[in-house]
Amino acid sequence: MKHIAIILSGCGVFDGAEIHEAVLTLLHVELQGGKYQCFAPNIAQMHVINHRTGEVAENESRNVLTEAARITRGEIKDLAELDANDFDALILPGGFGAAKNLSDFAVTGAECRLNDDVKSACKAFANAGKAVGYICISPALIPKIYQQGTKLTIGNDEDTASAINSMGGEHVNCPVDEFIVDERHKVVSTPAYMLAGSITQANAGISKLVKKVFELS
Amino acid sequence: MKHIAIILSGCGVFDGAEIHEAVLTLLHVELQGGKYQCFAPNIAQMHVINHRTGEVAENESRNVLTEAARITRGEIKDLAELDANDFDALILPGGFGAAKNLSDFAVTGAECRLNDDVKSACKAFANAGKAVGYICISPALIPKIYQQGTKLTIGNDEDTASAINSMGGEHVNCPVDEFIVDERHKVVSTPAYMLAGSITQANAGISKLVKKVFELS
Repeated sequence: MKHIAIILSGCGVFDGAEIHEAVLTLLHVELQGGKYQCFAPNIAQMHVINHRTGEVAENESRNVLTEAARITRGEIKDLAELDANDFDALILPGGFGAAKNLSDFAVTGAECRLNDDVKSACKAFANAGKAVGYICISPALIPKIYQQGTKLTIGNDEDTASAINSMGGEHVNCPVDEFIVDERHKVVSTPAYMLAGSITQANAGISKLVKKVFELS
Repeated sequence: MKHIAIILSGCGVFDGAEIHEAVLTLLHVELQGGKYQCFAPNIAQMHVINHRTGEVAENESRNVLTEAARITRGEIKDLAELDANDFDALILPGGFGAAKNLSDFAVTGAECRLNDDVKSACKAFANAGKAVGYICISPALIPKIYQQGTKLTIGNDEDTASAINSMGGEHVNCPVDEFIVDERHKVVSTPAYMLAGSITQANAGISKLVKKVFELS
């Protein structure tokens, strides 16, 4: 049974992990016959967004690991404990948390820096030649982990694609129900809610991404 | 296209809506060819639980509607606005929020009271003879909405079943991948995480419940 590590970035699309993408990832890992362990960095969120109004909740602060535990029903580990040797593959769902908590891409774009634990974990899977799936906006991290020219997609948003290309990635436009694979590095990416207008659209691409990650493992 | 109303009770199994159950409900409504609108009561949560430690976060308070908006990517309405005439059916995912925010069943058991907006909405669907699906612990609300002897399940937990029966419900044991239907009242229920040990188990029962709700609509 393949064992998949999953890195979450909070709980909620605007300041954490995109919840549909995270849950669909868990579902498809199990439907592929695998099991999963979720991780998140034990840090404060960049901020808290009121998801009903879209506004920053000025006086609130939340912890990425504690909030991500909502998605996993309490069963989650500090990302600092992730040992790539224990897993066959890694998947990162999206949501603004990937660009606000796992990295600062949402603020700094092409100049972005990755959280140290995120960088260590992702680099360990890359160096071990293990398959990794990046969903939605999380492929923006790929150029900071792999060598120049690694193929990836975030859908077809020109500004984001341009920022990624200037970081050394090779962005490829991709429809919502498909994925892009860089076979050499075993990196798979799919647009999900960068393009999806519904949960079934997100589900279509994520199910194929998870299947491909299993094939490469 | 059938239009399904969904009532959420927050965001997180221990103090709100069970996230897997909520997301899987949205997925299966769309896979059945329907569309959905989510609602939640605009009230404070009973409390906030740190989902990593299981402890009450003493100085925190969160709003049920605002937190439920995390599951719906911001697209959600105040439950007070729900008009049963606009919908073909209603579904309530579970999580402790159903027993802490939609009602006080978690505290008072068989003596429980329903939130006024929850009671009005559920009664309106019942009175109109429209199908309603109750998932996980939310079937504990059924005896307060329907006449005595309405069949339902929360799985096989004896204490909870006993409390429900003493409220006038007729609890029927049910495996995790099945549902119980009261055809006369068009009420469907499934145990989900009252029994499920994995997301695929919860998914099996929820997919069947949603399909049955569509058949009855």
